[in-house]
Amino acid sequence: MPSISRKGLHMPESPIRKLVPYAEDAKKRGTKVYHLNIGQPDIKTPQVALDAVKNNTIETLEYARSEGSEGYRIKLANYYKNHNIPVNAGNIVVTTGGSEALLFTIGSITDPGDEIIIPEPFYANYNGFSTASGVTVVPVISNIDTNFALPKIEDFEKLITKKTKAILICNPGNPTGYLYSEEEIEKLKKIVLKHDLFLIADEVYREFTYDGLQHTSVLSIKGLEENAIVIDSVSKRYSMCGARIGCIVSKNEAFIATAIKFAQARLSPPTYALLASEAALDTPQSYFDNVKAEYVERRNTLISELEKIDGVKVAKPKGAFYCVAELPVTDTDDFAKWMLEKFHYNNETVMVAPASGFYSTPGEGKNQIRMAYVLNKKDLISSVKILGEALKVYKN
Amino acid sequence: MPSISRKGLHMPESPIRKLVPYAEDAKKRGTKVYHLNIGQPDIKTPQVALDAVKNNTIETLEYARSEGSEGYRIKLANYYKNHNIPVNAGNIVVTTGGSEALLFTIGSITDPGDEIIIPEPFYANYNGFSTASGVTVVPVISNIDTNFALPKIEDFEKLITKKTKAILICNPGNPTGYLYSEEEIEKLKKIVLKHDLFLIADEVYREFTYDGLQHTSVLSIKGLEENAIVIDSVSKRYSMCGARIGCIVSKNEAFIATAIKFAQARLSPPTYALLASEAALDTPQSYFDNVKAEYVERRNTLISELEKIDGVKVAKPKGAFYCVAELPVTDTDDFAKWMLEKFHYNNETVMVAPASGFYSTPGEGKNQIRMAYVLNKKDLISSVKILGEALKVYKN
Repeated sequence: MPSISRKGLHMPESPIRKLVPYAEDAKKRGTKVYHLNIGQPDIKTPQVALDAVKNNTIETLEYARSEGSEGYRIKLANYYKNHNIPVNAGNIVVTTGGSEALLFTIGSITDPGDEIIIPEPFYANYNGFSTASGVTVVPVISNIDTNFALPKIEDFEKLITKKTKAILICNPGNPTGYLYSEEEIEKLKKIVLKHDLFLIADEVYREFTYDGLQHTSVLSIKGLEENAIVIDSVSKRYSMCGARIGCIVSKNEAFIATAIKFAQARLSPPTYALLASEAALDTPQSYFDNVKAEYVERRNTLISELEKIDGVKVAKPKGAFYCVAELPVTDTDDFAKWMLEKFHYNNETVMVAPASGFYSTPGEGKNQIRMAYVLNKKDLISSVKILGEALKVYKN
Repeated sequence: MPSISRKGLHMPESPIRKLVPYAEDAKKRGTKVYHLNIGQPDIKTPQVALDAVKNNTIETLEYARSEGSEGYRIKLANYYKNHNIPVNAGNIVVTTGGSEALLFTIGSITDPGDEIIIPEPFYANYNGFSTASGVTVVPVISNIDTNFALPKIEDFEKLITKKTKAILICNPGNPTGYLYSEEEIEKLKKIVLKHDLFLIADEVYREFTYDGLQHTSVLSIKGLEENAIVIDSVSKRYSMCGARIGCIVSKNEAFIATAIKFAQARLSPPTYALLASEAALDTPQSYFDNVKAEYVERRNTLISELEKIDGVKVAKPKGAFYCVAELPVTDTDDFAKWMLEKFHYNNETVMVAPASGFYSTPGEGKNQIRMAYVLNKKDLISSVKILGEALKVYKN
């Protein structure tokens, strides 16, 4: 029998999706499952985007341009300018989701055996895309006691080798909810310029910042033009996860020209989703104001409810819609599976993401979970109540 | 300045798209350009697929299941059973186009430095995906004088090394239009079983076979279950190139489980396009009968018109909607560019794909072009007339 590749054998399972079969079994037994495991918001997609697809007049569903139409990229550039990010259409490559933006970026700047430094815990699929490209993720640990602030620059510096090609951050962070300050980005600027590295920033949660804090894009920092690469997506901004439209933004021309070659090989992003995404740029500000107010309330609810449980420590998120919590258990992989397999409280249970999958250092995050506050306030209160009851039973 | 990867530097430009700027300039000068360069049919998408999207009731555009919904995969399995391909839903991974099906397949079975043997000329993007994965394409040459029939098995055998992981065919072929016989597939079966290789068949043109000939899928061959992998797509079958939905089909469980890990890392295929693709499975047979009759007429027109030109040799296609022709010039890259840049006939010109981009052996195919007969009969006649006039002028 022909054999699977070493790469294929090493591809990680998704920490978010690997417990899905247990959740499905729980549902079959009649147990209601609250999903805090995945960043799939229940927020409605803007009507203007939904209407663009419903009212389409396509008769032959043709390929789109590989890097996205000129028109869409011009509108995107205007969006960025309004967010203090001075770019033009030529700096943008439209991709099939933020996922493909990451894949093309890694492919364009790394060869097998190269290294990318990422503060951990980090978005689990960074591991998947790196493994698929034969690239090694070198983690630099951040800590729940500082809400997962940027690790010390010396900690990065120690890890840089000849094989290091980039530092990758997620800002605001998934799974941490941490929002990097301008000062922190300036620190990263110094180190990437010193060592000739790319600074890749996954900024798909740009709009989701709380407590009056502003987001700082790596593309708004002067002097970083040749080093900064932004990964973006319509998924979270417009609650359009299923569109699968994202983009790469960079002022480095050689990088963009290379990314376009990857884009041409896969022909084009999905045409219907492009209609929705272009229309979504006309979403009124009131939509974002309402969504943001909703997330602030959810975050406050989740944090205050979690803090009522003995032995639970919570990192306070300043952005995105995730929060990492430390639980008084030794193995959250086991606990999360147990909640689905063996536990229910009034016939309800909760699905969370064990945090070990967001670390690449073995053994790290074993007592942490990630929760996505993508449910309404009432459901969040029920979920945390169930979690608290589960912890009582699990300990015995 | 940080550097681009070696992989990125080696990514090939698309032979189909690299002349696009010249075509755009011609249009700006007021010259009409007939596009025979790209496999974008003018055929209408089935109404049932268009309606499924127009009448959708989505309010939150959510992620789909990574490997495609159970429901869609069950319907797909029924489609395959009706085409003499005995598979079930568990043998299918839904992908973002045939492109992603190729990418996941190459990633699942090869590591950097491995080799895949492909009869050339071949679909240009096989080169792109192989380069992106650090894999070497080893070409085995086929010949216009046999209409690009399967090369001798000894020619394959000579090229097999320890690094060879698969043989990849496109059936019916892009760019050749060649349809492999059952006997030819049986020959490939023997060699892949002997050397423990995968046999990957890109069968996206399955429905497009002419002259009463039947398509033979690698999955309908007994004894090939662990070795056969089918790449498929809705793009050509339903004239839905812009949907970006394809799939991988295989009865090799370890391979499918690995491909699903790649699928999970990129989250999901595009949701709107899934609606269209699932509905497209209900397309009535009359649609395919009409489309096939149309392509037969176009093929016959194109071939008979081309054969009227002195010095032009044409491979007679038995499937798909491409044809490779040899022209009485030494460099079709130059000729194709010249037709766009310098030539017009009654203010019209033609865009063709120089065939060198479909070969990986340097220097091969320099006097060949690929034409896609995706235009109506009248436009095809005009296109070939222009080509003939261009050849007269170019030679002087």
